Amino acid sequence: MVFTPDLLRRKCRIRNKLGRNSLAEFFGTFLLIYIGLSIVAQYLLTHERVNVWININVGWGFNIVFSVLTVQNLSGGHLNPAISLLMYTFGELELLHLFAYCVAQMLGAFLGAAATYYTYLDAINAYEKGPLNRTVVGATATAAIFSTYPASHLSMSGAYVDQIAGTAMLALFACAIIDKRNKVPSCAHAVLFGFVVLLIGCTFGMNVGYPINPARDLAPRIFSYFIYGRQVFTHPYPSWFLVPVIGPCVGAVVGGWMYHAFSGIHIPDEGEDKYQAVDQDELKAKNAGV
Amino acid sequence: MVFTPDLLRRKCRIRNKLGRNSLAEFFGTFLLIYIGLSIVAQYLLTHERVNVWININVGWGFNIVFSVLTVQNLSGGHLNPAISLLMYTFGELELLHLFAYCVAQMLGAFLGAAATYYTYLDAINAYEKGPLNRTVVGATATAAIFSTYPASHLSMSGAYVDQIAGTAMLALFACAIIDKRNKVPSCAHAVLFGFVVLLIGCTFGMNVGYPINPARDLAPRIFSYFIYGRQVFTHPYPSWFLVPVIGPCVGAVVGGWMYHAFSGIHIPDEGEDKYQAVDQDELKAKNAGV
Amino acid sequence: MVFTPDLLRRKCRIRNKLGRNSLAEFFGTFLLIYIGLSIVAQYLLTHERVNVWININVGWGFNIVFSVLTVQNLSGGHLNPAISLLMYTFGELELLHLFAYCVAQMLGAFLGAAATYYTYLDAINAYEKGPLNRTVVGATATAAIFSTYPASHLSMSGAYVDQIAGTAMLALFACAIIDKRNKVPSCAHAVLFGFVVLLIGCTFGMNVGYPINPARDLAPRIFSYFIYGRQVFTHPYPSWFLVPVIGPCVGAVVGGWMYHAFSGIHIPDEGEDKYQAVDQDELKAKNAGV
Amino acid sequence: MVFTPDLLRRKCRIRNKLGRNSLAEFFGTFLLIYIGLSIVAQYLLTHERVNVWININVGWGFNIVFSVLTVQNLSGGHLNPAISLLMYTFGELELLHLFAYCVAQMLGAFLGAAATYYTYLDAINAYEKGPLNRTVVGATATAAIFSTYPASHLSMSGAYVDQIAGTAMLALFACAIIDKRNKVPSCAHAVLFGFVVLLIGCTFGMNVGYPINPARDLAPRIFSYFIYGRQVFTHPYPSWFLVPVIGPCVGAVVGGWMYHAFSGIHIPDEGEDKYQAVDQDELKAKNAGV
Repeated sequence: MVFTPDLLRRKCRIRNKLGRNSLAEFFGTFLLIYIGLSIVAQYLLTHERVNVWININVGWGFNIVFSVLTVQNLSGGHLNPAISLLMYTFGELELLHLFAYCVAQMLGAFLGAAATYYTYLDAINAYEKGPLNRTVVGATATAAIFSTYPASHLSMSGAYVDQIAGTAMLALFACAIIDKRNKVPSCAHAVLFGFVVLLIGCTFGMNVGYPINPARDLAPRIFSYFIYGRQVFTHPYPSWFLVPVIGPCVGAVVGGWMYHAFSGIHIPDEGEDKYQAVDQDELKAKNAGV
Repeated sequence: MVFTPDLLRRKCRIRNKLGRNSLAEFFGTFLLIYIGLSIVAQYLLTHERVNVWININVGWGFNIVFSVLTVQNLSGGHLNPAISLLMYTFGELELLHLFAYCVAQMLGAFLGAAATYYTYLDAINAYEKGPLNRTVVGATATAAIFSTYPASHLSMSGAYVDQIAGTAMLALFACAIIDKRNKVPSCAHAVLFGFVVLLIGCTFGMNVGYPINPARDLAPRIFSYFIYGRQVFTHPYPSWFLVPVIGPCVGAVVGGWMYHAFSGIHIPDEGEDKYQAVDQDELKAKNAGV
Repeated sequence: MVFTPDLLRRKCRIRNKLGRNSLAEFFGTFLLIYIGLSIVAQYLLTHERVNVWININVGWGFNIVFSVLTVQNLSGGHLNPAISLLMYTFGELELLHLFAYCVAQMLGAFLGAAATYYTYLDAINAYEKGPLNRTVVGATATAAIFSTYPASHLSMSGAYVDQIAGTAMLALFACAIIDKRNKVPSCAHAVLFGFVVLLIGCTFGMNVGYPINPARDLAPRIFSYFIYGRQVFTHPYPSWFLVPVIGPCVGAVVGGWMYHAFSGIHIPDEGEDKYQAVDQDELKAKNAGV
Repeated sequence: MVFTPDLLRRKCRIRNKLGRNSLAEFFGTFLLIYIGLSIVAQYLLTHERVNVWININVGWGFNIVFSVLTVQNLSGGHLNPAISLLMYTFGELELLHLFAYCVAQMLGAFLGAAATYYTYLDAINAYEKGPLNRTVVGATATAAIFSTYPASHLSMSGAYVDQIAGTAMLALFACAIIDKRNKVPSCAHAVLFGFVVLLIGCTFGMNVGYPINPARDLAPRIFSYFIYGRQVFTHPYPSWFLVPVIGPCVGAVVGGWMYHAFSGIHIPDEGEDKYQAVDQDELKAKNAGV
C-alpha cells in the first residue's frame, strides 16, 4: 500500500463546511502574509536594491494569484476581512461564517508575520549593524516590514481617503471579474485578482503602502508589538493603526456596491439586445445589396 | 428579505440602451482617469522613485484591462472619443451615440481628474514645499499630473506625428484583437488592449507621454485650469492642447482602417484554403510511402 | 449605403495566396521594426531613463505579440527570414514563397526603419546637441537605434555563438509552442512567442543586443547607410554586419530541428501511454482495498 | 520525398518510456540551466545594469515556462530532483525512474553550465580586466554565475530555513496548480509554474539567490570546479554546497504535502456542496417573492 494524497483525503478530509472553510482562510492568509511581508523585507533590508518598487508590485500581484488559487475552491479565497464583509453585505456569507473567516484570517496573518520574522532574522540583525536594537523609527528601523506607517506628508483624512479608494478599487474590480455576465472564465479569476493588486500598487502605493486589508495590517502589527514594543501602536499618531482597519472595510463595501450600481446591474442578459447601437443584421442586409 | 445586487438589478436597472451605455462610458472613463492620473501622480510626486517608467507602463496597461472589463459588456468599453469615432466610421456606432459617448467620456474624465487631485492633495502640497504655489512650469510644477506637455525638443509637426502614430497603433492592434477571423476569445480582449497600451508606453512615450485619447488629455486639462490657471492652455504654445485632441482622432481612424486594408480583409474565412503554401495532405501521402 | 470593412473586403480582397501572404509579411515586419526601433530609440535618446533595459525586453515582447497577431492568420506571421527558412526546411513553405517572404520582410523592415527615423527626428537632433552630426561612434552616436553593433569585449566567434544560440532558442521554443502534441491553444501562440523574445532579451542581450532576425538588422542598416554613411557597414569590422544575418539563419535551423530531435518526435500521441511511470489505476485499486 | 519532422518521428522515435523521459529531463534541464545561468551572467557581468533584479525574476520565470513546456508532455517536466522526489513520495514516480530522472537532470545541468561558460567567455575575460584570473571571491569574481553563495549576514540555519521555505512554496503552489479539483487548464500549467518562480525571486531571493533545485546548484558547481578550483566547494564554509541540495529536497516534500493537508484533500468534488455559506437557491426564492 502506497501512502498517497488520495489516501490522506479518505482518512482526514474535513466534511464540516465551516471547519474546512475556516482552515482554508487561515492557511491562505498565512501564505499571503508570509510571502507578502517577505517581499517587503527584501525591499527594505537590501536598501531597495534587490527588490525595487516594481518587484513589490509584481511580487504582491503573484502572491495574491497563488495564495487565492490554493484555497479558492474551498472558502472562496477572500484572505481579507474587508472582502468577507462585502460578501456578507451581498448576502453570500452568513454572519457566523463572517466571524469565523475574520478570526481565521487574523490567526493566519499573525503566524505569517512570525514566519517572516524568523526567516529574515539574520538579515534584520545585519541591517541594524552594531548592538541589536529593534526600532520603529530611525535609520535602521525595520518595523515597516510588518505593518504600514504613513508617509510624513499625509494627514489623517488623506490616509482614510487613500485606504478607502484603494480597497474600493480592489472590491470594484473583483466584482467585475466574478460577475457571471462578464463571462471571465473562473480559472482566470485568481490571476486577474493578482493583477488588480499589482495595479493598486502603481496607483495608491506612495501614501501608506497599500495595505487595503485589515488582517494584513493589524495582525502583523500585533506580532510586531512583541518585538518592537508599544510604539507600533502609537507611531506616528495613537489612532494610526485603525486607518488600515476601518478604511478597507468602508472601501470594500463602497467599491463592491459601486460596481453593481454603475455597471453590473445594467448588463443585459444573454439573448437580450447587444451593446452595438447599430443593428448589424440590417447593416449587412443593406451592404449585401451593393 | 436580504438586499442583494440581484434585487438592486430588479429595482434600478436602466433599460434604455443609450442611457446605460452612456453611464457605462462615464463610469469606465472616470475609473480610467482616476487611476491613470494617480499612477502619474505617484511617479511625479516621488521624484520618479516609487513608480519608475516601467510602473507607468505596467500600471496604465492594467488600468485599461480593468476599466474596460468593468463596462465592456455594456458600451463596448471605448473610454476614448478617438476609438468611438473609429467605430462610427466602421458603421458600428450611430451618430447620436457617438455624441453621447464623447460627452460621457469627457464628464467621467473630468471627475476622475478631480478625484486624483483630492486623493493626492497632501502629497501635492508637500511636493511644493514652502508656501503653496500650483505651477505649470518649474522645479515644483505638478500640472503634468493632469495633462501632457511636450518634451522641450519637440516641434509641433513632430508632436502630431507622435500622437497620430501612437493612436494608430492602438486602433490597429485593437482591430486585430476584436476581428473574429483572428479567433481571439472575447474574454481576452480587455487584457490584450491593456498590453497594447503598455507597449505604446515603451514605444511612443518620451515625446509627449502617450495621451492617445482626447478625453484623457482635454478633460483633466480643463479641470487643472481651475487649479493652475490659464497657463495650462498656453504652455508651451497656445495651440498645444489641441495636439492630443486632434492627433488621436486622426490616428485612430488611420490605424483602424490600415488594419483592415493591409490584413483583416484578406484573411480567408473558416473552410477556405489555409496559409501553408505546401499542401500538407499531399506531403503526408508522399511520406507515408517511404 | 455605409462604407464598412466588410464592404472593403468584398471589393478589395486579395485572393492570390502568395500575394496576400507577402503583403502580410511586409505589413507585419513593417510594424515590428517601426515599433521595435522606436523602443530602442526611446532607450538610447533618453540616456536609458525613459525605457530602461526591462522596458526593452517587455516592449519587444509585446511588439512580437501584436505584430504577429495582426498577420498570423494570413502568412503565419514569421516576420523573420530565419524562421521562414526553418519552415522551408520543415517542408511547410515552398521555395518560391520563401523568396517572396524574405523580400517582403526586408521591404517592410526598411520602411519601418524610415518611419522610426522620421518619428524620432526631433529627438535625434536634440540628442546631438550643437550642429547636426549623425555618427556611428562617439558620445552622441545614434546609429545603434537602427542596427546592432557588438559590445567591445566580443570576438567574432563569440558573436556568432551568441546569435546562433539566441535564434536557436527562439526557433526551439516556437516549435514547442506550435507543436500540436503540446496542446497549446492557437490563440495563445502569438502571446507566447512574445514572451520567448522577452526571455531572450534577459538571456542573450548584453553581447549584441539580440537582433536574432536578419531582416530586423540588415534592412535598417541599409536605411541607416543613407543617413550615417558607409561606417554602418564597416564598424567595428568590415564583416560585422553579416553576423546578425548568417548567425540567425544557422541558429533557427539548428534550434528548430533540435526541438524535434530531443523532444517533439518522442511525444506519445493521444491515447498512447501517459508519462506517469506508475500505473494510476492499479494504484487506485490498491488503495481502494485499504 | 521531403525530409520533415514527421519523417524523423517515424524513423527515430524512442518507444521506451524510461528512455524518452530521461532524455526529456536531460534536455529540459540543459535548457533551464543554459538559459538560467546566462540570465545571471548578464546581471553580474554588466555590473547589474543590463539585467537588474527584476530581469532576473522575469527571465527565470519565463525560463521555467518554456523549458517545462518543451518536455512536459514527455516526462512531466520536473527539471528538479526535489520535485521528482516529491512525485515519488506521492506514488507518481517509481524509484527506478526517480534515479534516472536525477541522473538526467544532473547531466543536463552540467552541460548547460558549460554552454553558458563558452557563450559568455569573452565577457568573463573582459570582466576580469588585466591577466585572466578566475576567482570565487573578490572584485572580479565570477563563480557566482554558476552556483550560489550565501550573503555574508546569513547563518547556516538561516540558509536552511531559506531554502526549505523557498522550495516548499514552489512545491505547494505547483501542487495547487496541477490539482484537478482546482480546474486550472493543463495548457496554463507551465506558465503558472514560471510565475511561481518569479514570485519566489521577489520573496526569498536576497539570502541565497533562490536556487531551490539541487541540480541547478550542484551540477554547475561541479562544472565550475574545473574552472575555479576547489574553493567553489569550500567558500564560505566547507559544507555550504550541501544547503542548496538538502534544503530543496526537504522543502519540496514539506510543501507538497502541506498543500494537500491544509487545502487539497478538503476540496469538495464536483456535485458536492459549493463553498457559499448561504443557500443561493433559497435566497433567490426569497427575493423572487419581493
